[in-house]
Amino acid sequence: MRMKAAVLYGTRQPLVVEEVELDPPQTGEVLVKMVATGICHSDLHRYTGDAQSQLFPIVLGHEGAGIVQEVGEGVTRFKPGDHVVLTFLPSCGKCRWCHIGHPNKCDLGAHLRDGKMLDGTTRIHGSDGSDIYNFLFNSTFAEYSVAPEASLVPVPEHVPLEKVCLFGCGFTTGFGTATNKLNIRPGETVTIVGCGGLGLAATQGANISGAGKIIAVDIHPEKLEMAKKFGATHTVQNKHNVDEVIEQIMDITWGLGTDYSMEFVGFDQSDETLDIAFKAIRKGGTMCMIGVGAHDKRTLPIDPFTLTIYRKKITGVLFGESQFQTDIPRYVSLFEQGQINLDDMITRELSLEQINEGFEAVLAGNKVARQVIRYG
Amino acid sequence: MRMKAAVLYGTRQPLVVEEVELDPPQTGEVLVKMVATGICHSDLHRYTGDAQSQLFPIVLGHEGAGIVQEVGEGVTRFKPGDHVVLTFLPSCGKCRWCHIGHPNKCDLGAHLRDGKMLDGTTRIHGSDGSDIYNFLFNSTFAEYSVAPEASLVPVPEHVPLEKVCLFGCGFTTGFGTATNKLNIRPGETVTIVGCGGLGLAATQGANISGAGKIIAVDIHPEKLEMAKKFGATHTVQNKHNVDEVIEQIMDITWGLGTDYSMEFVGFDQSDETLDIAFKAIRKGGTMCMIGVGAHDKRTLPIDPFTLTIYRKKITGVLFGESQFQTDIPRYVSLFEQGQINLDDMITRELSLEQINEGFEAVLAGNKVARQVIRYG
Repeated sequence: MRMKAAVLYGTRQPLVVEEVELDPPQTGEVLVKMVATGICHSDLHRYTGDAQSQLFPIVLGHEGAGIVQEVGEGVTRFKPGDHVVLTFLPSCGKCRWCHIGHPNKCDLGAHLRDGKMLDGTTRIHGSDGSDIYNFLFNSTFAEYSVAPEASLVPVPEHVPLEKVCLFGCGFTTGFGTATNKLNIRPGETVTIVGCGGLGLAATQGANISGAGKIIAVDIHPEKLEMAKKFGATHTVQNKHNVDEVIEQIMDITWGLGTDYSMEFVGFDQSDETLDIAFKAIRKGGTMCMIGVGAHDKRTLPIDPFTLTIYRKKITGVLFGESQFQTDIPRYVSLFEQGQINLDDMITRELSLEQINEGFEAVLAGNKVARQVIRYG
Repeated sequence: MRMKAAVLYGTRQPLVVEEVELDPPQTGEVLVKMVATGICHSDLHRYTGDAQSQLFPIVLGHEGAGIVQEVGEGVTRFKPGDHVVLTFLPSCGKCRWCHIGHPNKCDLGAHLRDGKMLDGTTRIHGSDGSDIYNFLFNSTFAEYSVAPEASLVPVPEHVPLEKVCLFGCGFTTGFGTATNKLNIRPGETVTIVGCGGLGLAATQGANISGAGKIIAVDIHPEKLEMAKKFGATHTVQNKHNVDEVIEQIMDITWGLGTDYSMEFVGFDQSDETLDIAFKAIRKGGTMCMIGVGAHDKRTLPIDPFTLTIYRKKITGVLFGESQFQTDIPRYVSLFEQGQINLDDMITRELSLEQINEGFEAVLAGNKVARQVIRYG
């Protein structure tokens, strides 16, 4: 079938919104008419070249929601008309990780960067029949997506898909880190480094968990204001002076440091942001690294002596350590009850044609929590 | 009182075994007649200057056992004649860490490097009355030690103190890491980097926990032979080629990596040994850093991308995360039943007069598990 998609032809080239061909869903796959998709910084990393992939042309996007149109052979959990959130991480249900209840560690993750579907072929093609690469089995910057059944989570029909699409990646990653990976007890304290979509979701997660002090750190004052809205009790502006930031965190925590820190800065992550996240935590505290770091970094700016003597812990977290088939419905329920705030997370709605403006706004960085593209 | 002690007057100067003065125990302190003490690599770090302390003269030693002679004011748990193990880590019983059952994180730890007793004065003096610094509130390289009650663990009279002195530091650190910090389930897999006294104790800990594959890594073939004796199922000689070591570990673990790794190399720890410990673990695996790293290292040779994407965890461990008042009696019991092997851990017994030979042997590094000094 023909559909409109935003195609990226090369690093930092403007996305071209044009007609492309989409194959029908193959075995285990589902055709979804997109209703909405968030723009995630991971899309941008592919655009800027930070992700060091040369797979072009490609249709990005991986935080979508829509309505099932057609299912491929063997698909049993979905039928046309079902409302779904697309996640970027399929779970095979059979590997050792799925088997022990860690679907977010599924071995299919090894194929996330292949640019193909799980059978090794693509579904999207140019008008000349040439292959267009897929992004994270999703490619949601298009009117339709063919995605593995294993990536989809059903949601009730009455739920606004243009909001809950955020559960497909960013929100779940941030909120899940605070509520799945960490076991924050009421009154415990948290430092959140980086207040974009993920950091703000983590702020909500820390808040609903009853964290006593939620210290938001960012370079942009606008982001710190947003963080307050989502429950940050304290904000610290990082003016590229780590000592100054840590001094403020120590003041807030009576000299102790926080029980936990979460670093959400990702590819823009510098020694500075990691340094803050490590120094912010107390003796025996836990630092989570969520933002995916640059591929060419080879060291952590952390001295082994301090790590050992103070029994600090550093842990990587992907997709909020979520069991997304149960977590996303749970988040939907919290959203309906007003305990998760998505409305204020969405700073702007765009049409697919405006996608390049959306990308520019993410790169500017100071005013965007999440932008959502809505389809016709 | 007068006693013989081994005094260190400066970095890499031979220890001088001579008569010194010892004050009586003050409030909360206990006078112990030493029966035996292990030589730990931490003593050597003070000797070589790696520990970057300029407190001289000092009496080192902190892994001792002996018999109580006299108690200071306020001491309630001990009386003359009691047999005790001296640990290097007092636990105040009152701080937030002691209060939550983490005595090994006691805030008194902040004073470990002061060279003084908890009241800020010293107990050992030269014949001219000048102060001689204390080491870790113990200074066991002497015929007698005045130590805080809070550092002492009682042991039954029939237990050979010249063996169980190892529980005061090294053995507990290694065995405790494997059995307290990690929760090894039967069949899980472990890489142990560095097979000195700590690594060998950790090997015993992994073995008694039912670990399926215990992979010992060291540069010295002699150490790897020792590791086999304590339960290592596989050994890998590190010939300063990380890729080669990791390839062997992957072969042994069917390409997966081990569930856990423990790095015991400490000040001699290089990017190489940390790199091995990090790369040896599987997706979601845990790496423990136990060996106290050099003070001038400012980075870990670990790339953030891999840490995050593979959800690896790095954690510092001190004194085997032990609750030593209960762990050490438990170890004594395991030792009595033959389930902990201390006999083969002690590769040599020395007199105090031979201490410089003992230090040389630790520095040579290839043949020593633990050496024990026995007193008169």
